[in-house]
Amino acid sequence: MENGRRVLHHEMETTTPAAASTITIKGILSLLMQSIDENQVEKKVISLGMGDPTAYSSFHTTHVAQQAVSDALQSDKFNGYSPTVGLPQTRRAIAEYLSRDLPYKLSSDDVFITSGCTQAIDVALAMLARPGANILLPRPGFPIYELCAAFRHLEVRHFDLLPEKGWEVDLDAIEALADQNTVAVVIINPGNPCGNVYSYQHLKMIAETAYKLGILVIADEVYGHLAFGRTPFVSMGVFGSIVPVLTLGSLSKRWIVPGWRLGWFVTNDPSGTFRKPKVVERIKKYFDILGGPATFIQAAVPAILGQTNELFFKKTINTLKHSSDICCDRIKEIPCISCPHKPEGSMAVMVKLNLSLLDDISDDIDFCFKLAKEESVIILPGTAVGLKDWLRITFAADPSSLEEAFRRIKSFYKRHAKHPQ
Amino acid sequence: MENGRRVLHHEMETTTPAAASTITIKGILSLLMQSIDENQVEKKVISLGMGDPTAYSSFHTTHVAQQAVSDALQSDKFNGYSPTVGLPQTRRAIAEYLSRDLPYKLSSDDVFITSGCTQAIDVALAMLARPGANILLPRPGFPIYELCAAFRHLEVRHFDLLPEKGWEVDLDAIEALADQNTVAVVIINPGNPCGNVYSYQHLKMIAETAYKLGILVIADEVYGHLAFGRTPFVSMGVFGSIVPVLTLGSLSKRWIVPGWRLGWFVTNDPSGTFRKPKVVERIKKYFDILGGPATFIQAAVPAILGQTNELFFKKTINTLKHSSDICCDRIKEIPCISCPHKPEGSMAVMVKLNLSLLDDISDDIDFCFKLAKEESVIILPGTAVGLKDWLRITFAADPSSLEEAFRRIKSFYKRHAKHPQ
Repeated sequence: MENGRRVLHHEMETTTPAAASTITIKGILSLLMQSIDENQVEKKVISLGMGDPTAYSSFHTTHVAQQAVSDALQSDKFNGYSPTVGLPQTRRAIAEYLSRDLPYKLSSDDVFITSGCTQAIDVALAMLARPGANILLPRPGFPIYELCAAFRHLEVRHFDLLPEKGWEVDLDAIEALADQNTVAVVIINPGNPCGNVYSYQHLKMIAETAYKLGILVIADEVYGHLAFGRTPFVSMGVFGSIVPVLTLGSLSKRWIVPGWRLGWFVTNDPSGTFRKPKVVERIKKYFDILGGPATFIQAAVPAILGQTNELFFKKTINTLKHSSDICCDRIKEIPCISCPHKPEGSMAVMVKLNLSLLDDISDDIDFCFKLAKEESVIILPGTAVGLKDWLRITFAADPSSLEEAFRRIKSFYKRHAKHPQ
Repeated sequence: MENGRRVLHHEMETTTPAAASTITIKGILSLLMQSIDENQVEKKVISLGMGDPTAYSSFHTTHVAQQAVSDALQSDKFNGYSPTVGLPQTRRAIAEYLSRDLPYKLSSDDVFITSGCTQAIDVALAMLARPGANILLPRPGFPIYELCAAFRHLEVRHFDLLPEKGWEVDLDAIEALADQNTVAVVIINPGNPCGNVYSYQHLKMIAETAYKLGILVIADEVYGHLAFGRTPFVSMGVFGSIVPVLTLGSLSKRWIVPGWRLGWFVTNDPSGTFRKPKVVERIKKYFDILGGPATFIQAAVPAILGQTNELFFKKTINTLKHSSDICCDRIKEIPCISCPHKPEGSMAVMVKLNLSLLDDISDDIDFCFKLAKEESVIILPGTAVGLKDWLRITFAADPSSLEEAFRRIKSFYKRHAKHPQ
């Protein structure tokens, strides 16, 4: 026994220090859930912690999507393997869908089907990893990037998003951080965790900066089109002729089906650098070791993209706008939290915590654990996305749940305020 | 433009030499398909190249499975994210299903849900990779292991499977190959590509050898229970008390739904080494960057595992036995190919090519390309699975297709025979 145990002990615990220390959103949320006081039975748990609105009745996918998947399953034609890069008709449909936002046409060959946007992130980072390489990630950001970079041995360098400038990218920081070993800069737009939407001009400046530095842009557009403020959503791929862009996306958010795991990794590069045979071969081989999404769900994509009614999208946008308005209004009524920039997109907003107004709260993590325990409300501490003493609040929830959550946060504040109000 | 292009050129083409040179089954099959003479319109293409029987009417999943997935989809309860390691009820159902074959009980915590067995392979290899480590792989084998090892920077060492001993593992070779940096040995049982099924005694000897060497066993049981010869299927996990075993499997083959992408990575280790907090945490974090299978398909697993009728399994076994019999009988009628060991399981058999009987065929690859071009029959050259001048024939096909395929192989042989018969 000892032999086997010794090796296992040694091998399975060996990890990069970065991977070991990386905080995951799901890890923290699960700890918060465990810390809820089970005696508080009268208080239903309200989670504003995750970008998954399917638990709330205001957010429901369209019948078109559900029927398309059901039809593909029942057809009996899609129980077998698909090509590992995806079904041809699925790649074509996504190329056409994304081309609507671009000044050029994507081809099927630009599109690779992934198991959700998470797998698309891994593909992008694994494809770029090589000894000594580094990648520029936003702070605050989405920690799956950090975790992926750690597992794929890619050094991470953080640039700030600037709250006072609507969470725009600090372009000077990008220039200062990049060197000969920098392979890419990651942009999440519409923004998670900040709820910002970048203007055409700002995106163009990011593309020009990346071009100047000789690095790629990875554009995470998992919240693509979920923009409800004054700034319309512009795809980073629009600037693919300035600098090659890898666009990552999925059905998850716009169609409210995160559990279907249907995402895409797309090369936006009208000058064709990504179509070099060696590059294509390498990407294809990497897809051979990935699981990929179910064939019948892939087969439903042409119908889902082609037949979803505009009204469905409008309803989601209106619901998100209404929810984010509730969120912002209620935040104003609670002195210890403030929102520097009203969300214009996605499903989350970053809120600043003023600890000087609180008596016995040491930091954002302490705030969230005490809130979970006392009020059965789950909010993500900003530390989990890179900003200590901030909070990420997901507003993709029913209005009544939001109202109740903020009532409880308010009473939590009152109980912990430095000078009782 | 040049800047962006330069970097991309540099980064995206950089790969380990091993990954670049690794042959993939899908890559070769796709080249073979392209080489089919399109003028041969009267000959329908018959592919005996891939372990995906869904194209043939003899192989069809059970109504129970399809209904369970449909019900989960229609329930509207499973459109959201699942935990990245899998839904609790799915993990529990798989633990119970696999425990039926074991002298101890697996717990839910031993089971991690993957996007098909392919992703389970990646998890196993990525978890074991560290600088300098090596892994022992069977020859012939399944090239996804080699490709995965290359991408995850794990050195590969091959041990032979012995055709004259029913494709048993060369245990002496394993002892000779292993050193302090060896982390695991991979066993595929029932065997792909050889169609063999290992006896209880042989599996026990493998476990004892691995224990002696201080290495883990990775047991690929994607063809689990698909045994139709004299040797019954025994799960490697039976010997988990001798040496820790990582069992990989999926619904794909036994339920004939490879496109559903529902697999598992299971720690078989009753002494609990895998349950050490650091090991569990590392595995869980790795799952956070994987896509994983669709939540509603996961939700269907308890019903699929619990309600599938034994008659469905028996029918598949009988069909496979009948198909493999046709295969073996027809092989005997073609002088240039021979089968050293009648298949007893899985869906494929290794067949030896006697080039001395052929006039203008240089090797297995030449044989397969000329066969595809002239006869529209697709067979995998043995080189793709590590054995030059052998062929892997998949017999999971309709009897009529098999008969027609062998008629064409026979006429191909006659045309290319050294001394015309």
